[in-house]
Amino acid sequence: MTGAGLERLSLNTATVKRATLGEAVDVAARAGYGAVGLWRDRVEEAGVAPTARIVRDAGLRVSSLCRGGFLTASTDDGVRAALDDNRRAIDDAAAVGTTELVMVVGGLPASGEPGGPPREGAAPGDRDVVAARARVADRLADLAPHAADAGVRLALEPLHPMFAADRAVISTLAQALDLAAPHPADVVGVVVDTYHVWWDPALETSVARAGAERRIASYQVCDWNLPLAADPLLSRGYPGDGYVDFPAITRLVADAGYDGDVECEIFHADVWATPAADVARIVAERYATHVAPHLTRG
Amino acid sequence: MTGAGLERLSLNTATVKRATLGEAVDVAARAGYGAVGLWRDRVEEAGVAPTARIVRDAGLRVSSLCRGGFLTASTDDGVRAALDDNRRAIDDAAAVGTTELVMVVGGLPASGEPGGPPREGAAPGDRDVVAARARVADRLADLAPHAADAGVRLALEPLHPMFAADRAVISTLAQALDLAAPHPADVVGVVVDTYHVWWDPALETSVARAGAERRIASYQVCDWNLPLAADPLLSRGYPGDGYVDFPAITRLVADAGYDGDVECEIFHADVWATPAADVARIVAERYATHVAPHLTRG
Repeated sequence: MTGAGLERLSLNTATVKRATLGEAVDVAARAGYGAVGLWRDRVEEAGVAPTARIVRDAGLRVSSLCRGGFLTASTDDGVRAALDDNRRAIDDAAAVGTTELVMVVGGLPASGEPGGPPREGAAPGDRDVVAARARVADRLADLAPHAADAGVRLALEPLHPMFAADRAVISTLAQALDLAAPHPADVVGVVVDTYHVWWDPALETSVARAGAERRIASYQVCDWNLPLAADPLLSRGYPGDGYVDFPAITRLVADAGYDGDVECEIFHADVWATPAADVARIVAERYATHVAPHLTRG
Repeated sequence: MTGAGLERLSLNTATVKRATLGEAVDVAARAGYGAVGLWRDRVEEAGVAPTARIVRDAGLRVSSLCRGGFLTASTDDGVRAALDDNRRAIDDAAAVGTTELVMVVGGLPASGEPGGPPREGAAPGDRDVVAARARVADRLADLAPHAADAGVRLALEPLHPMFAADRAVISTLAQALDLAAPHPADVVGVVVDTYHVWWDPALETSVARAGAERRIASYQVCDWNLPLAADPLLSRGYPGDGYVDFPAITRLVADAGYDGDVECEIFHADVWATPAADVARIVAERYATHVAPHLTRG
């Protein structure tokens, strides 16, 4: 099935975490994918300009750059650092050739932390989640002009509510759309990641709204497996292994008018231990079985 | 501080899991609590009539019986078994002297399972969460007349979305209120448990709605600790140890007009290993510090 019907499929480099950028691009291209989704660690290793060339030479698109965000800092230094880092991420997204910068907006600032990604074992500090969300809105307003100038969309990713304390105070699509609302649809959008949103009782309404507002920046497919891994961040599965209803959610996304790339991003120790070419093949098979048949607008 | 200002505080027997019913009631009464929340395992051990007598003789109320639910079975046998069990739970609630039966409505039926509490390691079966929610609505309609006759309210507990696959397809207060809407407020209500709802971006709106509809059946306080325990069900903490903003949420509940008991239900291996009298004292101190000062309507 190599190549057949995979033109919208994108391999996220985090799914083949141990591969270099070149290796990840190579296995995706050989398996017939249309695109790759890039994490910044791989881009930084290879360099921005070489990354763009490697992907282009393989005949692939960049579906998104992951990630900007961590916008909840409450100190002046933390805010300045977050804005600097996100402006660099916006520039990098444009330079590697994608319009979509995935934003993981950050959790509650831990005790004594200036913001930024969570530190293992950090104590609870600020508990005001309502104020943290307001700071995210303020930082989006700060960043939107730079994003618009660069032709890059800030793609807000609601994370599963189990990450609300330490990773993302955006927990639902409706909330992401409310935060995007003050901005043009090509400047602030939303990510629909099945792992994070499958449980949402408002999913049908929110996906339709996201489509009507033309804000769906990325559709990401990954399954919800049980039991949760000791680190729940590493608890994702190949589509078909867990509890997510891929046909139903894919039809919602298609009916909302989304016709962009479908990225597969899996964090899982077993997947990372598998040779990258095998992972690319398995993902392609699962996509062809559980997702692709439902991508046609009903 | 024994007894001072603790008249609305209720000790859930699950918090002192290794205590017998008599021991749990005794430590709650000695610490000055006004009530106890009962799990059915302790009631079954002691017997229904003796349970009512033990609590009454200690001068306490029963704030709730936990739990009915597991209503998502899709087979005739599974539905019949669920209805039988829930009618017994309704009768037991009335007999032990509470009007509130906490309902954990059940997750997706596992492969080959007739429904009921999750079995460790069960494979994914039915993935249609929308249909599972519709079956919950049907079962509530089946049970409502029996509950009304018994003077017992079915108190729908939204569980944190990380339990949506295996324990409760009700994940938000708004969704619980929508399911309650066809029924009188004294027949179907909702539980506000901080552990399960603290992350919800619609929390303020939903708590206010629950109050306006007079459906708040129980306010339960328990903290969200990180990192999650290997079994996330056992990841709760004493109020003040984690990320929950107790003053803010308690004020929402008070402003919504709730004037009932405040139950503390903690599942945590360290808490269970602590002598019950010490647990009761610690919970009372945390309640007095983080919760009670904010229970006055603002």
